[in-house]
Amino acid sequence: MENPRRKFLKKSLLLAGSLYMAPKVLGVKKGKISSKLGFKTAKLKLTYRPYTLDLKHVFTVASNSRTTTPVMLTEIEYDGLVGYGEASMPPYLGESHETVGKFLSKVDLSNFTNPFELENILQYIDNIDINNTAAKASIDIALHDLVGKLLGKPWFRIWGYDPLKTPNTSFTIGIDTPEVVKQKTIEAAPYKILKVKLGKGNDKEMIESVRAITDKPLFVDINQGWKDKQYALDMAHWLKEKGVLFVEQPMPRELIDDIAWLTAHSPLPIIADEAVQGLADLVKMRGAYTGVNIKLMKCTGMREAHKMLEFAKAYGMKVMIGCMTETSCAVSAAAHLSPVADFADLDGPLLINNDVFNGMKIVEGKVTLSEQPGIGITKKE
Amino acid sequence: MENPRRKFLKKSLLLAGSLYMAPKVLGVKKGKISSKLGFKTAKLKLTYRPYTLDLKHVFTVASNSRTTTPVMLTEIEYDGLVGYGEASMPPYLGESHETVGKFLSKVDLSNFTNPFELENILQYIDNIDINNTAAKASIDIALHDLVGKLLGKPWFRIWGYDPLKTPNTSFTIGIDTPEVVKQKTIEAAPYKILKVKLGKGNDKEMIESVRAITDKPLFVDINQGWKDKQYALDMAHWLKEKGVLFVEQPMPRELIDDIAWLTAHSPLPIIADEAVQGLADLVKMRGAYTGVNIKLMKCTGMREAHKMLEFAKAYGMKVMIGCMTETSCAVSAAAHLSPVADFADLDGPLLINNDVFNGMKIVEGKVTLSEQPGIGITKKE
Repeated sequence: MENPRRKFLKKSLLLAGSLYMAPKVLGVKKGKISSKLGFKTAKLKLTYRPYTLDLKHVFTVASNSRTTTPVMLTEIEYDGLVGYGEASMPPYLGESHETVGKFLSKVDLSNFTNPFELENILQYIDNIDINNTAAKASIDIALHDLVGKLLGKPWFRIWGYDPLKTPNTSFTIGIDTPEVVKQKTIEAAPYKILKVKLGKGNDKEMIESVRAITDKPLFVDINQGWKDKQYALDMAHWLKEKGVLFVEQPMPRELIDDIAWLTAHSPLPIIADEAVQGLADLVKMRGAYTGVNIKLMKCTGMREAHKMLEFAKAYGMKVMIGCMTETSCAVSAAAHLSPVADFADLDGPLLINNDVFNGMKIVEGKVTLSEQPGIGITKKE
Repeated sequence: MENPRRKFLKKSLLLAGSLYMAPKVLGVKKGKISSKLGFKTAKLKLTYRPYTLDLKHVFTVASNSRTTTPVMLTEIEYDGLVGYGEASMPPYLGESHETVGKFLSKVDLSNFTNPFELENILQYIDNIDINNTAAKASIDIALHDLVGKLLGKPWFRIWGYDPLKTPNTSFTIGIDTPEVVKQKTIEAAPYKILKVKLGKGNDKEMIESVRAITDKPLFVDINQGWKDKQYALDMAHWLKEKGVLFVEQPMPRELIDDIAWLTAHSPLPIIADEAVQGLADLVKMRGAYTGVNIKLMKCTGMREAHKMLEFAKAYGMKVMIGCMTETSCAVSAAAHLSPVADFADLDGPLLINNDVFNGMKIVEGKVTLSEQPGIGITKKE
């Protein structure tokens, strides 16, 4: 089970019989043969196409409402293998089909002949332009899928993690009327944790509506919606009584001192989301929050996310692996980090009608990884 | 070149002709076949043997002199493959053949059937006892060698690093009389950087002896030998004039405030060695030093070293990859991290007469990695 490729090799050699000496002979000549057959000059070829996700429900957070999310689907081909990637562009984050297309049109991978040089390639990608974090993630994810396939292993194995240690994912309940919230809570029966969006003035009504249906543990996500630190602290106390596990991004990210005060006094962990994009932000904001929500679309992808995760764990910070509205591509990529995370919010594909991949599954509420190599996805028929 | 195993597979299938459909068939049945053949129940089997390194020169640092170094050579066998590891026990660090043998006798890997679960296995190893960092490293290195071989790639590739970015290694000049120091400096002609040991009262004489022979850039390593911060600062100014690049562990590690003061005022970077074993120390000591010397024998191995490296880079700290007196086993393992390090001090095998492995090479002074899988070593005939 651990090494299907090597085992297959053993097997094919056994079956081939007279070919048993082949490895040594080919091993010696490999360089020359590869060169003749063109393997050494294999190039990385990027393609991409815009796609629009159709949301099952109108989705409302503190700042806006929407029914669709634009994404860009990327593919990087190399030596007969294809790695899949994705950029998700919720409108309020400033990226779109147009901006991501523009960024990707500047990407020239022809200088790289070895996809294993992730540090070099992703440094080049990062230097193309500032921001554009989702566009950058769409390259990072496709490269990780490709490299994992070349290694014949999924990334959670390459990173040495235990797939049995994945957390339960939360399922998100957007801001709505009590009737709709109750209905959504009923529909969320398969999930063991709910993430309730707050911050539009009806905070207690939202929680009471959920609690009228279920006593499951809850996360709450304010999306910077609270403006007063004393209100935030009072709510944290009230929410703790209601079985909430943490408060995500309670106040505007600029109010660093107020948030640090809240973190110091709050009975619940305070998790950074909008305040922390990549590792550099995490280094700066570490003292002001108890933990961080790491999302591939914010941080430029799996490599940066892995660095952030290890950094946060070094400080004993809580780590949540989150997502945007995404297909099973980007969400599966993120799921490989979840065995060492404290929390997961990987419900992206559950919120859409038109996923294009099969990937990570939620089984009885739990993030469930497969042994498929790379990020572990296949295209839907 | 990128995927010899997969290419060989293609090749063997081409040659096999009629077996072309084999992968699909075998893919489907793999689970059952593997189980029958016993692959699924493959166990990790640890063996080890004591060995004593014979040093080319009597080696003197601030605290002691010696002519041999005890090491323990480990092997972990799994499913027909062997991973090699090593513990090096310079006497002043408290480990010995006896203590490492005692630790390794407590290791029971029979509960683990998958070497890819590095996080679990190494957590188990770490919990067996406190300290024993070299003993722990001997397991970590053997596991990494094994997993790299199962993946068919060297670790610098798995980590995404560029082998062309390896630094030059320093070559160490121990404390001795001017004549011997000059002679050693002459013998060190192949190396582009020298690391000069100081801290026994003849600091300026040591440097002047080296400078009588060469104007190569120098590192200096005090091994906690200086006791006065003003002397340390005066020396740092003098050493900078002499072409020294940094000062390693200038004062006893307990004198944190004095060292932090020195770091704040010194014209040269101040690098931690004895003050930082693993990641937890690095987190604590970060503010007091400009950089850190990461050694596998101090930090328990490649996994912890990789975490420390990424942590230090997140803060813009200088990183040196160092070693003890070791064979090419442990030094090759460490070398996989060097492409993203600022400095390397990987001269261990150069200082001994009886290396038992071929591994990482120093070519014109530069750390030079091979594409061999795992840690990239083979046993000497």
